[in-house]
Amino acid sequence: MSLLIRGGTVVNADQSFRADVLCEGDKIVAVGPDLQAPAGARVVEAGGAYVMPGGIDPHTHMQLPFMGTTASEDFFTGTAAGMAGGNTLIIDFVIPGPNDAPLDAFKQWSSWAEKSAGDYSFHVAVTNWNETISEQMGVLTREHGVNSFKHFMAYKGALLVEDDVLLQSFTRCLELGAVPSVHAENGEVVYLMQKSLLAAGITGPEGHPLSRPSSIEAEAAGRAITIAGMAGSPVYIVHVSARETVEAIARARAGGQRVYGEILAQHLLVDESVYYDKDWKKAAAHVMSPPFRSKDHQEALWAALASGTCQTTATDHCCFMIEQKLMGKDNFTGIPNGTAGIEDRMAVLWSEGVRKGRLTPNEFVAVTSANCAKIFNIYPQRGVIQPGADAALVVWDPEASRTISAKTHHQKVDYNVYEGLTVTGIPAVTVSGGKVVYEKGELKVEKGAGKYIKRPTFPSVVTAQTLRNTLTAPKGVKREPVAAVTP
Amino acid sequence: MSLLIRGGTVVNADQSFRADVLCEGDKIVAVGPDLQAPAGARVVEAGGAYVMPGGIDPHTHMQLPFMGTTASEDFFTGTAAGMAGGNTLIIDFVIPGPNDAPLDAFKQWSSWAEKSAGDYSFHVAVTNWNETISEQMGVLTREHGVNSFKHFMAYKGALLVEDDVLLQSFTRCLELGAVPSVHAENGEVVYLMQKSLLAAGITGPEGHPLSRPSSIEAEAAGRAITIAGMAGSPVYIVHVSARETVEAIARARAGGQRVYGEILAQHLLVDESVYYDKDWKKAAAHVMSPPFRSKDHQEALWAALASGTCQTTATDHCCFMIEQKLMGKDNFTGIPNGTAGIEDRMAVLWSEGVRKGRLTPNEFVAVTSANCAKIFNIYPQRGVIQPGADAALVVWDPEASRTISAKTHHQKVDYNVYEGLTVTGIPAVTVSGGKVVYEKGELKVEKGAGKYIKRPTFPSVVTAQTLRNTLTAPKGVKREPVAAVTP
Amino acid sequence: MSLLIRGGTVVNADQSFRADVLCEGDKIVAVGPDLQAPAGARVVEAGGAYVMPGGIDPHTHMQLPFMGTTASEDFFTGTAAGMAGGNTLIIDFVIPGPNDAPLDAFKQWSSWAEKSAGDYSFHVAVTNWNETISEQMGVLTREHGVNSFKHFMAYKGALLVEDDVLLQSFTRCLELGAVPSVHAENGEVVYLMQKSLLAAGITGPEGHPLSRPSSIEAEAAGRAITIAGMAGSPVYIVHVSARETVEAIARARAGGQRVYGEILAQHLLVDESVYYDKDWKKAAAHVMSPPFRSKDHQEALWAALASGTCQTTATDHCCFMIEQKLMGKDNFTGIPNGTAGIEDRMAVLWSEGVRKGRLTPNEFVAVTSANCAKIFNIYPQRGVIQPGADAALVVWDPEASRTISAKTHHQKVDYNVYEGLTVTGIPAVTVSGGKVVYEKGELKVEKGAGKYIKRPTFPSVVTAQTLRNTLTAPKGVKREPVAAVTP
Amino acid sequence: MSLLIRGGTVVNADQSFRADVLCEGDKIVAVGPDLQAPAGARVVEAGGAYVMPGGIDPHTHMQLPFMGTTASEDFFTGTAAGMAGGNTLIIDFVIPGPNDAPLDAFKQWSSWAEKSAGDYSFHVAVTNWNETISEQMGVLTREHGVNSFKHFMAYKGALLVEDDVLLQSFTRCLELGAVPSVHAENGEVVYLMQKSLLAAGITGPEGHPLSRPSSIEAEAAGRAITIAGMAGSPVYIVHVSARETVEAIARARAGGQRVYGEILAQHLLVDESVYYDKDWKKAAAHVMSPPFRSKDHQEALWAALASGTCQTTATDHCCFMIEQKLMGKDNFTGIPNGTAGIEDRMAVLWSEGVRKGRLTPNEFVAVTSANCAKIFNIYPQRGVIQPGADAALVVWDPEASRTISAKTHHQKVDYNVYEGLTVTGIPAVTVSGGKVVYEKGELKVEKGAGKYIKRPTFPSVVTAQTLRNTLTAPKGVKREPVAAVTP
Repeated sequence: MSLLIRGGTVVNADQSFRADVLCEGDKIVAVGPDLQAPAGARVVEAGGAYVMPGGIDPHTHMQLPFMGTTASEDFFTGTAAGMAGGNTLIIDFVIPGPNDAPLDAFKQWSSWAEKSAGDYSFHVAVTNWNETISEQMGVLTREHGVNSFKHFMAYKGALLVEDDVLLQSFTRCLELGAVPSVHAENGEVVYLMQKSLLAAGITGPEGHPLSRPSSIEAEAAGRAITIAGMAGSPVYIVHVSARETVEAIARARAGGQRVYGEILAQHLLVDESVYYDKDWKKAAAHVMSPPFRSKDHQEALWAALASGTCQTTATDHCCFMIEQKLMGKDNFTGIPNGTAGIEDRMAVLWSEGVRKGRLTPNEFVAVTSANCAKIFNIYPQRGVIQPGADAALVVWDPEASRTISAKTHHQKVDYNVYEGLTVTGIPAVTVSGGKVVYEKGELKVEKGAGKYIKRPTFPSVVTAQTLRNTLTAPKGVKREPVAAVTP
Repeated sequence: MSLLIRGGTVVNADQSFRADVLCEGDKIVAVGPDLQAPAGARVVEAGGAYVMPGGIDPHTHMQLPFMGTTASEDFFTGTAAGMAGGNTLIIDFVIPGPNDAPLDAFKQWSSWAEKSAGDYSFHVAVTNWNETISEQMGVLTREHGVNSFKHFMAYKGALLVEDDVLLQSFTRCLELGAVPSVHAENGEVVYLMQKSLLAAGITGPEGHPLSRPSSIEAEAAGRAITIAGMAGSPVYIVHVSARETVEAIARARAGGQRVYGEILAQHLLVDESVYYDKDWKKAAAHVMSPPFRSKDHQEALWAALASGTCQTTATDHCCFMIEQKLMGKDNFTGIPNGTAGIEDRMAVLWSEGVRKGRLTPNEFVAVTSANCAKIFNIYPQRGVIQPGADAALVVWDPEASRTISAKTHHQKVDYNVYEGLTVTGIPAVTVSGGKVVYEKGELKVEKGAGKYIKRPTFPSVVTAQTLRNTLTAPKGVKREPVAAVTP
Repeated sequence: MSLLIRGGTVVNADQSFRADVLCEGDKIVAVGPDLQAPAGARVVEAGGAYVMPGGIDPHTHMQLPFMGTTASEDFFTGTAAGMAGGNTLIIDFVIPGPNDAPLDAFKQWSSWAEKSAGDYSFHVAVTNWNETISEQMGVLTREHGVNSFKHFMAYKGALLVEDDVLLQSFTRCLELGAVPSVHAENGEVVYLMQKSLLAAGITGPEGHPLSRPSSIEAEAAGRAITIAGMAGSPVYIVHVSARETVEAIARARAGGQRVYGEILAQHLLVDESVYYDKDWKKAAAHVMSPPFRSKDHQEALWAALASGTCQTTATDHCCFMIEQKLMGKDNFTGIPNGTAGIEDRMAVLWSEGVRKGRLTPNEFVAVTSANCAKIFNIYPQRGVIQPGADAALVVWDPEASRTISAKTHHQKVDYNVYEGLTVTGIPAVTVSGGKVVYEKGELKVEKGAGKYIKRPTFPSVVTAQTLRNTLTAPKGVKREPVAAVTP
Repeated sequence: MSLLIRGGTVVNADQSFRADVLCEGDKIVAVGPDLQAPAGARVVEAGGAYVMPGGIDPHTHMQLPFMGTTASEDFFTGTAAGMAGGNTLIIDFVIPGPNDAPLDAFKQWSSWAEKSAGDYSFHVAVTNWNETISEQMGVLTREHGVNSFKHFMAYKGALLVEDDVLLQSFTRCLELGAVPSVHAENGEVVYLMQKSLLAAGITGPEGHPLSRPSSIEAEAAGRAITIAGMAGSPVYIVHVSARETVEAIARARAGGQRVYGEILAQHLLVDESVYYDKDWKKAAAHVMSPPFRSKDHQEALWAALASGTCQTTATDHCCFMIEQKLMGKDNFTGIPNGTAGIEDRMAVLWSEGVRKGRLTPNEFVAVTSANCAKIFNIYPQRGVIQPGADAALVVWDPEASRTISAKTHHQKVDYNVYEGLTVTGIPAVTVSGGKVVYEKGELKVEKGAGKYIKRPTFPSVVTAQTLRNTLTAPKGVKREPVAAVTP
């Protein structure tokens, strides 16, 4: 089956050029001017629009069992909504309980994901430390295409791991050629702050941001970075939401460390005032961790993307219906954490980023797909339009508009944090697996059409780091044996 | 008994002026020109030298039971050596084991200290958290003149406390009007680094600094500062040895936090090359935590004192004989941590600080006594020469010299980290309790002459902080009750 | 004539204590409990209020000829208003034109100041560079008690001096033992921005802040600091208004430089929104340089005072009546720059600073008088309540309130930037020259009663710096003569 | 004429892959596996080596008339030496005198460059400001392919321009879609420091670094960045040599500014100790501006490249023979400023960068060609191996070694700052204009074979910036007219 995208401007992270794009099966086979459509090919007229690599969302949680309930969006609906937003790959998280074997969890998540409409891959969380975990990390990298492991510094009593686990796991990651990542919030402090706020009678959603200020995110990020420095490993900080965290990353990079940061589209636009809404449901709908911040953090986040201090954008897509949020109606610590966003990330970034001069179109591609593909080592299979790459792309209409609303979105959740926002610059057509899966506002998805994408170990940055560690390894001093008794 | 210091220049933290100083009993009763010596008074001719408040060393460990042995310097010899160096007060540390009651430990240390030649006071360490500890902190502040509590973030398996203890204890300190302090090093990381270095065959003293790089000090300091920010309390960082730690403190202060830093005189002069000495004993003699750093940290430490980012200087005086150090001859983690310094701190600071233009004479007084007295709330009883203050002072000869050596020092330890250094600017006479205790190079001390100095709670900074916390306390939103079922 | 202040609490920068204060003539002669009033002494009952050193405002411009008009407040009215606000000393600026001899200008200003009700001193501006200026700087320091010279980096075509003047003048200051100061704004950039804004049709007062953003203040401050670093001299930055400037100062101090910063009380409270007021007169009344900033700068300024990064507070008191402001009604660059504030500085700092926990009472004294007296070398003559100091003090009622208004203030100007603000903590009695000059809301001032205060050179910090420069002076390499022709 | 590079691994900035590369004429026409050599094609066997875009050196000065002499390397010898080092493009500088017309200078330089063996392009310096210059900047961009203008903040009395020129020229650049660059050193301060050092008897080459410390580079960079911020334009800082300058750039980027930095390979390896060499000639040979720095700056520079804070590497290749250097034998200010480096830049970066794990091979391509091509808007014509790009590439042997020496280098200068350094990773073959110009250690160059490369205006970053400026343009307030007389 052939597909020709005709008359568009290809926008890659490094360049833009007029070209047609021809796909055969699930691969791009030609990119160039005036390509001929093979017999029987489907032709999509781009009409001058941009043809870009499909978005990669490196941070989603489909149907996650969490806080006593399960995320409302499953792998089918979630990947479908993602494709409506121009995304053609998610990297979700396999999250074993502290006493679970990682491989078992991997199998569990894999079975859930079989119904995916779009392609997916998996980070695996390290929520404890022992020989089994260490060994199975090896199996996962060698046999299952996993090249990244996540660590929660928050969620005490559930997923939180201590510094000793971080150092041991980061060291193991380096050995395996995998990239460690962290959810950076000081979980011990959060836990005590929650208790203290509840004791002070603050039970509503505003207790959520009060218990997790930006300082405790930056602290944890700085700690993870220090530990990565000790391990000699890179580290990737998920959902950087605060100016201070950006500064911590920048300091580390200025010191020569390989540190990466991911920013959620939501944090670029939504601010903490939502938690003080008189309507409990609206306030609760925004409960996610890290929480929304004061407005003055937002320009720092945009600048982090433009300057390269942070490299990727994501959504932490983790949906809970209002009814689920009500689990915490008397106690904010019971509100399931998570918001939706996969359908809107790219449009929001284009509309507020590219159209406002904060990002160039090429930088847009870098932060929505290419950088992620490079860090997680699936570039140029993903993240670029070129022959040989996967036929996973989006035809982007920079002038078309859409007003975001929970009433019209495809996400399986009854709230949208961008409700009412009109974005200009939206997907016209999404292609996944060489097929048009979204067009003219309509999804044409198929359950199970999504494929699991394996990611090889040892991205070039890890290789460089390993080389450097070898050269700078600590050396001991040769000395004569020391007599026990001094003269 | 009267004592008249005649013909000197009084140097306080805020001003210098020609004046005689008259002491009656253990108090200064007059400061001014041309004072008459009362009948029978002892007269000390200052001969134009400086008359300054006796040094306060806020960080000593006399006869500390530690790492399987006991510090060689006891409260008698240690306070005596201190007075030879111009100090008239130490603040030592009561360190209960994790399962000990703080009050019991306080009594134990108090009994050890009865033989002190010079005055002393006590910080108390919090090495665990429970109701007893919390309550006894109250007793210690109300009944025993303790207004500061120390927390070890290092020494895993022994003294280390986790972040939850820090937050709870800092909060309790604030409530009591006490100042929390921390030994800032990430003990989890140190522990694993030690294991890793030993496994790599690095067993000598050079393993010590390799296992405790400056990054893990700055990380822990930043973490403690963040936690203090959550508690709304001040925090005092002991033995700041690294540029990055100074920067962490400066950032916090720029954000309005009340953070204090203490610098050991040793770290201003000695650098990490000592650990690579071919002579194991010499290298081991320098094993202390935090370890000596590369030279480029030193100007940052001096600047921290001149700029006020750090306020105090100390020694962490904790002596172990070479024979004791040999406990770790096959494994650096067994070398008892600690170096001497109480006798040399002031001379080293004057010689390298004042004489080289890094500090003014007034700043010298600030960092050797006045600031410490203010932070720990015994100013103006200590830290200033004025009527009503304790008769605890030093007559300082800015032109006299001494070559430091273990052979001639009064400290009970067979090594001196400044061995061979000639300092210009040394004590001519030290007065403690209104009596000359050191003169012309000779100690005239008496066992048990030292008194315990009580320190009241609520220094003005803590009061200000409390006021501010009240004004900025988090507030909840009033909302209608939320029905469980959505329409 | 004797004056006894009875029953107060003396608050100095370093300590607070209950004490009576006895003044004879224009000196404080005794400070202590239960002092006896000499025969015929005037007794002021402090009633438990605070007795503090009179405020020093190191930055005023009385009757300044500027921008084609003359400041409405003269030395008599201005010093009187200052005393109503608790101040007992101003340091005004002698500002010669670029072609004027400094000594002539000094005489001119001195003659204007003869009518002062309160004490005064003078900084002298260096607005050009030549032999005469350099020599007269020497005369001013040796014969006229001037120990500080100011440099304008703004006001192109009028007072602005270039970098070469700064370096030469700073070097000369160091030699003389004087402190150089700068008004830090990039005047070249301001000039072009003004033209550009006018060309864009922006002629109203909002053009003022748009032409002088915080970045060009921080740039100039950084430049002056760099130049001071080259000269090896300290430098004092007047009216620091921006977070970035504070950061520039902090960086320099962290590098060991002796840099000082002054903050105007106005910048702590008033923000840039005033320039967008629909009422031209109100907007224009706030035109001063540097302009008011966005609110997020204010906490950085408060923190700079609490942390010691900035040391002094001032007002840049320079009054113009609305009628004078109207000179710029069609062109914001014609609005005379300046606002009033001398009467309100201390009350505003107490009410918003001490009462809100941002400053302790002792820090209040430090930033309103003591630090200034130290930097400009008149401590302990000023800035402290102690025997021998000048009888220049304020009895401060921390609980009394006043609502600030142009209708009731003593300042000779028809606008007040704090209009309507109620402050708690105000002067009850001000004493200058040993006499009560303000009491129960009423001034009791006398034309010409104010005295000129000479300031000696070589404050201790300058001496230290000189010593350090000597030790670190650059050294050349001895080499054989080089033949002109290579083999 | 066809050329096939067979059996290599193409290394681009974003990816590496095994591929043959086919060139026809001066273009790459195919990149892929198993390409067939056309009839008559020259075949180069890469033998597994890397095939990379030819290096671009964005900073050279061939045959520059400077400081009373002329650089010894002309456009023929210089571009030839560059090709021996793997470079296929230089961007040299047209430098009109302050009273010269830019177009005349452009023609002068163009005529000199006609003999170039390799391709070249031109930045044009703005050394004064008037209508003619402003207009001719337009002509240069529209008609001559110039898209960048350089500004010297140093060289007082010769090339130095003041801040008002910077602001006007940056504004003009933005309008034209060109990128302004600066040589950042405070020339006023340098001038006075030179006088002062000479007066102190320091006449040797060590006076050079003493007169230009890193602080005055960082100051000027910060100033240029501030001015660019006011203009709303990007800015490119040439030859960043100091940690503080990197920090200034990083701060600006964190604030959302588009600032770029270039690092000379020499500064990454050579340190200031060379100026203290006893051999005057050796010391003088290293005289260039900015001078070499202390070793501790070097890791900051490497990290700046890895983190993306700085984007390009260059050489400031500007050769003077020892005999020319002797012009300053009695006075360091007379030593012509400049060192060679074009032949060694890439090898040094590979050997010390890639082989030591500081850079990945892809990052090497980014900093030696791709980033430069993007910033100066000739990407993908240059900076990437892909069909359609210029046939300007290097076959890089990562395992071959060379010991650098003035005796063997092709540069026309009798000194080499890397003398004796053995580098591993050197060019095997260089291709320019589709022809092999260097092979097996031998140049096969032709006078005049080099072509002038035009660079179009409005790189995407400038376009984004323009959009942003439009959106954030300052707005005035509408007010009623103000009556001149107040009621």
